[in-house]
Amino acid sequence: MPYPYLQPLLEKNESKIVLLVMDGLGDIATTPEEKTALELASTPQMDRLAREGTLGQTIPIRYGITPGSGPAHLALFGYEPLEYVIGRGALSAAGINLPVSPGDIAARGNLCTLDKDGKISDRRAGRISQEDAAPVIELLDKVQIPGVEVNVRQVKEYRFVIVMRGQGLQPDLNDTDPQEVGVPPLEVQAQQPGAEKAAALMREWIEKATLALADQPVANGFLLRGFASDPGLPSFEDAYQLDAACIAEYPMYKGVSKLVGMEVLDLVGPGATGEFETARKEWQEHDFFFIHIKKTDSYGEDGNLKAKAGVIEEVDRALPILLDLKPDVLIITGDHSTPAHLRSHSWHPVPFLLWAPETHRTDLETSFSERKCARGGLGTFPAVETMSLALAHARRLQKFGA
Amino acid sequence: MPYPYLQPLLEKNESKIVLLVMDGLGDIATTPEEKTALELASTPQMDRLAREGTLGQTIPIRYGITPGSGPAHLALFGYEPLEYVIGRGALSAAGINLPVSPGDIAARGNLCTLDKDGKISDRRAGRISQEDAAPVIELLDKVQIPGVEVNVRQVKEYRFVIVMRGQGLQPDLNDTDPQEVGVPPLEVQAQQPGAEKAAALMREWIEKATLALADQPVANGFLLRGFASDPGLPSFEDAYQLDAACIAEYPMYKGVSKLVGMEVLDLVGPGATGEFETARKEWQEHDFFFIHIKKTDSYGEDGNLKAKAGVIEEVDRALPILLDLKPDVLIITGDHSTPAHLRSHSWHPVPFLLWAPETHRTDLETSFSERKCARGGLGTFPAVETMSLALAHARRLQKFGA
Repeated sequence: MPYPYLQPLLEKNESKIVLLVMDGLGDIATTPEEKTALELASTPQMDRLAREGTLGQTIPIRYGITPGSGPAHLALFGYEPLEYVIGRGALSAAGINLPVSPGDIAARGNLCTLDKDGKISDRRAGRISQEDAAPVIELLDKVQIPGVEVNVRQVKEYRFVIVMRGQGLQPDLNDTDPQEVGVPPLEVQAQQPGAEKAAALMREWIEKATLALADQPVANGFLLRGFASDPGLPSFEDAYQLDAACIAEYPMYKGVSKLVGMEVLDLVGPGATGEFETARKEWQEHDFFFIHIKKTDSYGEDGNLKAKAGVIEEVDRALPILLDLKPDVLIITGDHSTPAHLRSHSWHPVPFLLWAPETHRTDLETSFSERKCARGGLGTFPAVETMSLALAHARRLQKFGA
Repeated sequence: MPYPYLQPLLEKNESKIVLLVMDGLGDIATTPEEKTALELASTPQMDRLAREGTLGQTIPIRYGITPGSGPAHLALFGYEPLEYVIGRGALSAAGINLPVSPGDIAARGNLCTLDKDGKISDRRAGRISQEDAAPVIELLDKVQIPGVEVNVRQVKEYRFVIVMRGQGLQPDLNDTDPQEVGVPPLEVQAQQPGAEKAAALMREWIEKATLALADQPVANGFLLRGFASDPGLPSFEDAYQLDAACIAEYPMYKGVSKLVGMEVLDLVGPGATGEFETARKEWQEHDFFFIHIKKTDSYGEDGNLKAKAGVIEEVDRALPILLDLKPDVLIITGDHSTPAHLRSHSWHPVPFLLWAPETHRTDLETSFSERKCARGGLGTFPAVETMSLALAHARRLQKFGA
């Protein structure tokens, strides 16, 4: 259980908590003159919240560690990311609503192109379209072998997820993707003695499935990676006595939310406005709303500082929808930094804004940016403390000790 | 292994990292008007780096804990100082290049003066000179007993190191130095059952060695303390995949560097200039340069604020030599504070400057001092995180999780 000392302190009330995560929000300026995306963006709403509330900055995993999206979100949800590890296959399956139960094994797949000698000539089957890939992936879904149930579902274009359900399956298997062309896919081998059965069944399925695709013109093969089973995470509701909802556009964030037992809501529309309107629609149904904005990260990875700032501005313009709902606690932060300068996730601290009008301690900072957050009233702290702060400011934690 | 979660993330590249440690750098002002050594010093170079880079302050061991030099440096090197403990004897032996292997026991020694009753009349043999002490210490080196090999080497003046090599030796022995005069040296006793053999051999050697010095006019006795064996530290290279060099003038800092497997470089000249020129000379040969400046600490212990500031200015003037080498990451910090006001090491946080022009996040601070560092972009953090930050900013750490 994350933070077992919280358990005896939890108490329910009518409060509403919103955790608004702008993916990869943190940015860097490498000179005093440069601006980060947050500094570049015009954010009158967030600046007002910063002035009224309190700022800080989080360390997502540990100092110097660049997180993937999975561990970064687990940390925000209060799950110590070095302790709770979600395999990529399980995360992907959860993201497309393909159930993975303890004992199942899941993996991510790519359709690929094999030459006449069975060697990989294109690891993504020429980036075959959604429409062209769909029937090929349906062929894979029909391949069954005795003793297990296999499900294969398209994620997007040439990408799919496979889940094998049976008895005594352990997921310690190597990827079949050699990460290069000109060689055949690797054979699945058990990486632990307990995984021999799963390895044998997976080899049997792969052999049959490869035959099933033999006549395909482009996508006549496939590569598997990230074998994993359900990580068995304690539920968010058990951990915090919160009925939690996830509002996200991208599968991966729905996936990690589902793995902690959040209800994933259908969006009423696209973008920040659509997500905030979804919160408005479901406001009475839940205590806690995790709202995920993807494109700050995407534009950060593209190195497009202006577009990243633009997404932040779009969120800022839509914020009144959320504020009208009068959340008791509103946290605006990122899961990690994705500096446009670096075009990748990074280890830098993440700006954090806490606004809880009944309970926050106003600090000296008056606008929302990385440099202001570094001087904020919450200091520099581990992201995994986010939920403790949220619960406290929602008055959902009793006194510890007498 | 320090920080085992770093291991799978390490990747090599061509980057160069410099860790410049001004010993005891941190100072205190006890009124708003007073200045610390860093504030008193004119440091245009460091101020420029502070303006461009990012500041912070470290907690060397734990809040309120005043570190010795050994644990303070271990922390900077990423070795949790409460877990990895170097005995004083092992540190001293390493500092003078006297090998201590696992199973050996080492101790520090002082020549002393004994009166006719065998009681200590001077614990340092009248601070006998280097030249006068050398032949006496050579006499000690010649004293051998069956079953073990004993080596004795002069450190400086009346100070020496003894290393006993044999089978089944454990270092849990009390000091023979009673820390007072008018009493005889203490007898060596085992502090743990496993150390009985070492205690008996050491008593036998001490008896024979005391006889060997009986005719000496001043240094007719000796005192031993800090029995220790090799701490078996994991190597810096294994921990970080860095080929590391130590540039230091004083034996102790060479010693701790050697214990983690750094190559200790011969200096091309004295002072900061000599040390930085040594880095220049060896720049292509190593990935990581630990450069140690001693005299900030020495003058702090003397209570000489101006002289401490003078050393800082000397380092600042020499900095262009280092900067011309274009390090990818330059960290300027101390191992602990040695406030001139207190004339001793202290527990206060230590100023920390990180300059990595491709990856740092510029903060709002524009000069290098204790008070500015407390508001810096890195916040207040454990010194043991220094290496994680250095590796991250050198782009030597891959992403954690997907």
